[in-house]
Amino acid sequence: MNIRSYTSVADRRKALEKELRVDLGHVGSFTLDESVASSRNCENMIGAAQIPMGVAGPLLIGNKKYYLPLATTEGALVASVSRGCKAITESGGASVLAVRVGATRGPVFKVKNMEENSRLFEFVMSHKVKFNQIAKTTSGHISLTNVETNSVGLYRFVRFTFDTRDAMGLNMVTFATQKIVTFIESQLHIPCVSLAGNYDVDKKPSWLNIIYGRGTEAWAEVIIPATILQAVLKTTAQRLYDVWIAKCMIGSALSGSMGFNAQYANIIAAIFIATGQDPAHVAEGSVGITTADVKGKDLYMSVYLPDLMVGTVGGGTGLATQKEALSIVGAKTSQEFAEVVAGAALAGEISLLASLSEGTLARAHERYGRNR
Amino acid sequence: MNIRSYTSVADRRKALEKELRVDLGHVGSFTLDESVASSRNCENMIGAAQIPMGVAGPLLIGNKKYYLPLATTEGALVASVSRGCKAITESGGASVLAVRVGATRGPVFKVKNMEENSRLFEFVMSHKVKFNQIAKTTSGHISLTNVETNSVGLYRFVRFTFDTRDAMGLNMVTFATQKIVTFIESQLHIPCVSLAGNYDVDKKPSWLNIIYGRGTEAWAEVIIPATILQAVLKTTAQRLYDVWIAKCMIGSALSGSMGFNAQYANIIAAIFIATGQDPAHVAEGSVGITTADVKGKDLYMSVYLPDLMVGTVGGGTGLATQKEALSIVGAKTSQEFAEVVAGAALAGEISLLASLSEGTLARAHERYGRNR
Amino acid sequence: MNIRSYTSVADRRKALEKELRVDLGHVGSFTLDESVASSRNCENMIGAAQIPMGVAGPLLIGNKKYYLPLATTEGALVASVSRGCKAITESGGASVLAVRVGATRGPVFKVKNMEENSRLFEFVMSHKVKFNQIAKTTSGHISLTNVETNSVGLYRFVRFTFDTRDAMGLNMVTFATQKIVTFIESQLHIPCVSLAGNYDVDKKPSWLNIIYGRGTEAWAEVIIPATILQAVLKTTAQRLYDVWIAKCMIGSALSGSMGFNAQYANIIAAIFIATGQDPAHVAEGSVGITTADVKGKDLYMSVYLPDLMVGTVGGGTGLATQKEALSIVGAKTSQEFAEVVAGAALAGEISLLASLSEGTLARAHERYGRNR
Amino acid sequence: MNIRSYTSVADRRKALEKELRVDLGHVGSFTLDESVASSRNCENMIGAAQIPMGVAGPLLIGNKKYYLPLATTEGALVASVSRGCKAITESGGASVLAVRVGATRGPVFKVKNMEENSRLFEFVMSHKVKFNQIAKTTSGHISLTNVETNSVGLYRFVRFTFDTRDAMGLNMVTFATQKIVTFIESQLHIPCVSLAGNYDVDKKPSWLNIIYGRGTEAWAEVIIPATILQAVLKTTAQRLYDVWIAKCMIGSALSGSMGFNAQYANIIAAIFIATGQDPAHVAEGSVGITTADVKGKDLYMSVYLPDLMVGTVGGGTGLATQKEALSIVGAKTSQEFAEVVAGAALAGEISLLASLSEGTLARAHERYGRNR
Repeated sequence: MNIRSYTSVADRRKALEKELRVDLGHVGSFTLDESVASSRNCENMIGAAQIPMGVAGPLLIGNKKYYLPLATTEGALVASVSRGCKAITESGGASVLAVRVGATRGPVFKVKNMEENSRLFEFVMSHKVKFNQIAKTTSGHISLTNVETNSVGLYRFVRFTFDTRDAMGLNMVTFATQKIVTFIESQLHIPCVSLAGNYDVDKKPSWLNIIYGRGTEAWAEVIIPATILQAVLKTTAQRLYDVWIAKCMIGSALSGSMGFNAQYANIIAAIFIATGQDPAHVAEGSVGITTADVKGKDLYMSVYLPDLMVGTVGGGTGLATQKEALSIVGAKTSQEFAEVVAGAALAGEISLLASLSEGTLARAHERYGRNR
Repeated sequence: MNIRSYTSVADRRKALEKELRVDLGHVGSFTLDESVASSRNCENMIGAAQIPMGVAGPLLIGNKKYYLPLATTEGALVASVSRGCKAITESGGASVLAVRVGATRGPVFKVKNMEENSRLFEFVMSHKVKFNQIAKTTSGHISLTNVETNSVGLYRFVRFTFDTRDAMGLNMVTFATQKIVTFIESQLHIPCVSLAGNYDVDKKPSWLNIIYGRGTEAWAEVIIPATILQAVLKTTAQRLYDVWIAKCMIGSALSGSMGFNAQYANIIAAIFIATGQDPAHVAEGSVGITTADVKGKDLYMSVYLPDLMVGTVGGGTGLATQKEALSIVGAKTSQEFAEVVAGAALAGEISLLASLSEGTLARAHERYGRNR
Repeated sequence: MNIRSYTSVADRRKALEKELRVDLGHVGSFTLDESVASSRNCENMIGAAQIPMGVAGPLLIGNKKYYLPLATTEGALVASVSRGCKAITESGGASVLAVRVGATRGPVFKVKNMEENSRLFEFVMSHKVKFNQIAKTTSGHISLTNVETNSVGLYRFVRFTFDTRDAMGLNMVTFATQKIVTFIESQLHIPCVSLAGNYDVDKKPSWLNIIYGRGTEAWAEVIIPATILQAVLKTTAQRLYDVWIAKCMIGSALSGSMGFNAQYANIIAAIFIATGQDPAHVAEGSVGITTADVKGKDLYMSVYLPDLMVGTVGGGTGLATQKEALSIVGAKTSQEFAEVVAGAALAGEISLLASLSEGTLARAHERYGRNR
Repeated sequence: MNIRSYTSVADRRKALEKELRVDLGHVGSFTLDESVASSRNCENMIGAAQIPMGVAGPLLIGNKKYYLPLATTEGALVASVSRGCKAITESGGASVLAVRVGATRGPVFKVKNMEENSRLFEFVMSHKVKFNQIAKTTSGHISLTNVETNSVGLYRFVRFTFDTRDAMGLNMVTFATQKIVTFIESQLHIPCVSLAGNYDVDKKPSWLNIIYGRGTEAWAEVIIPATILQAVLKTTAQRLYDVWIAKCMIGSALSGSMGFNAQYANIIAAIFIATGQDPAHVAEGSVGITTADVKGKDLYMSVYLPDLMVGTVGGGTGLATQKEALSIVGAKTSQEFAEVVAGAALAGEISLLASLSEGTLARAHERYGRNR
């Protein structure tokens, strides 16, 4: 069979069922707008995967209460985040900060020698205004905010950073970068080897993204009083701190990990899938640092997520269930959305580290995820 | 409202709709077995996210043809993988190898001093048989295959590796490790600070996992003749090689990335979501190395994925759409499934690197992902 | 004995000889100016270590020929660099580029909460002129060129970069940073936890230094014609390229190394010790990327050293033998000195990779380092 | 001039003086055995660099007191280590542990395809006894202790680990590996691309070495009572702890550093140069983790150095001043020597972290290193 030859989702699915002698009835049961999804989001569409969606919260951030839609197949996750939300909310809420760094593309050029390399360097650093003009011809929602460059041998890497408003914007920045690159090539006759030279760095964990930030950088923090540590989390500040330093600091240092945290990936994957973010960005979103500090008998906790590629428009955010999940969050901007993600990550850290400090991790999983 | 107080998915969803004044009609439209999903996979369930599912393939691996279910909201991905599959299949198929390393848990103990530390070291290294016996009392599907340990200051980290057959097995190994840890504590009176000490390393990119491997390690390779490079991929061996070395090698080296590849995360996220794997494992699964080599006018390409946490039973694999997606793959074991993932990753690398070498990346996205 | 109680080098040495019943006659034989060395360079001085110094070269860089003083105890190193110099020089010389990034200090402050953190951020980013004025009161040779800052939890890290002219300048920047920090503390009443918060990053390999650069960033490149590859290096472009990609790219990627090169550390350690640089900076200086490229039958090779902490005045450069070694190099500025170091590193890479490509590494060491 | 054409050190030096019109009188003043040094340690020898040598100590380790020879040009270093030694010694001494991992060589082979790769894998893993026999024919002081291997694409990397008794042994293992590699090539007709494939990993910071260990792994720890913290170090347990966590943990995590410590490189460079170790190994030796813990009002501190390439025979250890410096240490084995290095590193950490906690770092450098 030629999977590409079918024009209807149902026909393609049926042909596949016949070819493989399988039943795809559930995959075929969906309410998404087929014509949109099959043309914009997914080629060779045969239906949809259904991922159970739960809700955690309310989570108090500043003065606003949020509910968190989490799409997951892993028992105990929603319960864990819920408990963290409760602890934060009862403690007076989390403080958060999100800074939009921007979406990046990092093309790589190949020069003939050091002199041509210098010429390219000068050109790139002196044409930011022009590059921005070019970018703006590709979309009314984009502007160039930063240009960084470095060179190794005959390769010059350039990292273009764009403001893409409330879109995650990777496609937009790809188009804009393509046009900028074409302009550079036409002016200097120096070829671009690759429009994306892993200097973006897209969908890989990298120190470059951690150090420069990518997408949105977000911080969240809370002070949890001793009473709530006891009542909600069944632990103490000192015990939770002891787990934190052993696991998130020394354990991660010894393991050569880029993630000095407990479980960012779990929370990010679940919110990303629910709300139509690109789940491949979990690869970069899971890096970052959690800190703890004992304040008398109370506990300070914080999260730092330097590399959150999120948006509230574009990509998968327009699909029916994803749009509804976004309406549960109710964030007005991608920045606010990133703040909620950071708050959710904070809830996840608090709850898991508390569990570990009380030796209840295995029990929680036994209770919620019996089938494995 | 108290989100936890509802017993029915519908009631909880309706209460949330009322509280937030939103419409969650699509989220509420699902065919998954609610009683199973809400008790085993997702607490506080309100419905399901629908992720468009497409199919790429056939992909020839050895003598067998596979179809790849890909759940994604990112236009161009399925088309890209399809093209890679076509190139591989027409080239005679990919060779693959998957080795089950096993699921790991890495508890951390805190000793009083170097002497107690040595005592713990000796105990841990001399009780593997006993630990295995303990593990086996927790499940008939688990066995302990390896114990590694290291120490920093007063902390001793132990990495237990288990064979969990065709399950990804993280919950199983958590229970087994809990019981082993309780035994150690009872014998030595040395407290375990945390059952999971980021020495696992679970759901974070880490060199420890890359070096030791985690879950399943997988390799795939193919030689693509010049004719197919031209006909299917519109490029040449040399041009694709040039992109590979600039991007996957030098670009990643300069960026401090753990991913020396083009887009493993895209493919892994899409297959993981479709087939009920834990998408948080994209955080570790996206690391690994792609290589290219020019053989006359033909091209050799390979992928190496050291850290694939996958299974064909347990977790989300039993849910209706996920089960159907697995039936599309038709892998009989988790090892075979990992081989298919490696083959799919190889297809993705070939297609994206070819696109970049021809400057068509932006065009492909323009065509398939117009809305952003 | 109290080693600190002696005022003369000879008395201290004699007391130690008596106490330990050892003979330190050679350590006591030195021509360095004892009063200077014992007061500025080395407390509790008992004499001097003698490190054999050899010379490699001439090395043609641009139009100028350099000789390289190398202090080493490792047989084969000087011979190896010499051979690389010969290949470069006969090929018409290396092109080099050195950019002074500056010496850095990275203090860390501890705030009470996110608001105080923002206040500190605003203050730091808006007082660069003032900070520079303060810096200039500590030395006539220093100026502040850059301020970078990031925050995790309650910690705010600031990276001050200074121009210290031809001095490596770490002590100068420590004094200047101390005074700036005191000013910040006095204005905001936010305590500095540590004047050096591993955000410098001093004397540790780090991605922050690689990405931002530290001290001087340097590049060197050369094209070696096939005839010289054959005559001087006994290899071909393709063979050397094959070693490079296997070792410096894929081997380093697989090993989680920050050094994508063959032997920068050897060359840097030897030049640093000879010329009075701080050899502890080998810890950061050994990172960086070597590239190779086949041009027909000729070979392009390059080195990139992002983190060279070097100077031609101050520190150990004023000591007698070190000063003489610097006179052999004849560099007029620290920038020129860094260029020579880069050229020397290039020579080392060429020679070692050539050796490896011909299987002669073991033989060279057998010949020159028989005693091990 | 042709620097290689001179047979006497003096003639070569004089020719260079004439050519460059410089005075190398101090370089020419040395007492090292010229015939040995110029034939075994340093080609093209012209004399020796004199590095001021100071002594710190006594340092109590277990029941034995050690003095530490430190060759350095950096004022304040010896004083700093001395203070740390005093604090440790008055606290009852450090506990240390050193484990000889062994010297490694990591050749890389290039296969034709996955099948040949498997054949090589099987051969390598099943011939350890034979490889050891081969190794032993190259030296009476060597034995093969471990073989590790991994593969990417067409490259198979093998890491041979050898016991080289009290020699650092890199040359020995190079010869042995060469012979083993020749055997493998002759049996399988699979070519070795490079005898050293950066899988050793020699003289580069790498996670592979940290995780597997290289040379000798060493640990040291001490508990410093509050009274000594106050009297000797002018600080408190809590203040020093605060610096440690901000700098060595969070600062290093944020900077992407492999060194979670304060100043290992300083101490290692100074001892290595004094005692004839290879100072290029500072590149790997400076990695590792320092920990602190508050015990009431006392302080626990530890160091972990996973990658110490040291020896007490061979290399530069036989040179006159180096031999004398080793006699100051008085270590009977390389293992004992590594223990002393760990103890010295611990002293350096304690002293510098104490200084930073009291804001006296700048003052110490002002006092001891005035000239910069």
